[in-house]
Amino acid sequence: MSAYTKKDFPTHKVRRFLEPGPIVLVSSAHKGKTNIMTMGWHMVMEFSPSLIGCLISSGNHSFEMVKASRQCVINVPTADLAATVVKIGNTSGRDVDKFKVFGLSARPAEEVRAPLLDECYANFECRLSDSSWIAKYNVFVFEVVKAHVATAPKYPRTIHYRGDGEFMISGGNTARWRRLFRPGML
Amino acid sequence: MSAYTKKDFPTHKVRRFLEPGPIVLVSSAHKGKTNIMTMGWHMVMEFSPSLIGCLISSGNHSFEMVKASRQCVINVPTADLAATVVKIGNTSGRDVDKFKVFGLSARPAEEVRAPLLDECYANFECRLSDSSWIAKYNVFVFEVVKAHVATAPKYPRTIHYRGDGEFMISGGNTARWRRLFRPGML
Repeated sequence: MSAYTKKDFPTHKVRRFLEPGPIVLVSSAHKGKTNIMTMGWHMVMEFSPSLIGCLISSGNHSFEMVKASRQCVINVPTADLAATVVKIGNTSGRDVDKFKVFGLSARPAEEVRAPLLDECYANFECRLSDSSWIAKYNVFVFEVVKAHVATAPKYPRTIHYRGDGEFMISGGNTARWRRLFRPGML
Repeated sequence: MSAYTKKDFPTHKVRRFLEPGPIVLVSSAHKGKTNIMTMGWHMVMEFSPSLIGCLISSGNHSFEMVKASRQCVINVPTADLAATVVKIGNTSGRDVDKFKVFGLSARPAEEVRAPLLDECYANFECRLSDSSWIAKYNVFVFEVVKAHVATAPKYPRTIHYRGDGEFMISGGNTARWRRLFRPGML
């Protein structure tokens, strides 16, 4: 697995890695335990404060951990981690310590107690910003309070879930249509 | 531009085309006028009913049209439409009739008054399901009540926005990790 060198990244720009829609890994910590879950249902909601809407099903062990701790880290894995991402989604933190079982490295975060997943391309430290749709839809709104992004490559090769066991893998990146944007519409 | 042949598609499976995170076009109709906007901030929220959370900024002409009509169509464009998608995002329906200006074909929908964008790979007819976060976040929750998807190709070549004028274009699709999924976790 890749070990990325990372640097601080502006929190208002995390859309660069989340808006394209990759599967992400959500890490959490509560009462001395840590956990990881796979998440596909999320969206950017605001640049500044940097808000991300996320659906964490109440059936997941992470649901109670994130709800109680009011924190998590959203980690962006790349295609080399795909098999591990699937296995993380298959298992429950009630039964296993996923960091140990899958050989993942937990690095301490700066602003939250949830750990950073070292093997991921980017790590976004999050605090719960709005809990009012947790009961209704299992939707959490997080504020990204600290962001760490790999210094290379410029673009991660991310995996995007289609359901039914199928993934789309991110393809090329282009600025060829940038000249068509009006200033202020980027 | 492609003219796709489409067929009815199960509404509880629209995640196959939305969960990977493409830029979509939202078409609307209200008081005899139609409009189109470009949208990158959306997420799947439930299979059945088929719920999609969408952020439509209140600065957009489409905001009032969708809010008042309580309907829209979410259309999935492919890479061949990328320049048009950018231009749609650049212009306001207050000033121009985007169907005319961009030479797009509006096909009548079955369940809503908003038109289907014929040149798009998929069209999801939506009714507003929850308006309680419109004032707070500009977030609309829609229920997909009718879905139309192209019969070919199997996978659309979609565009995924990164901000700053850059797009990621969808790459390969694979079921190579399907065998790792536990039944019921697909």
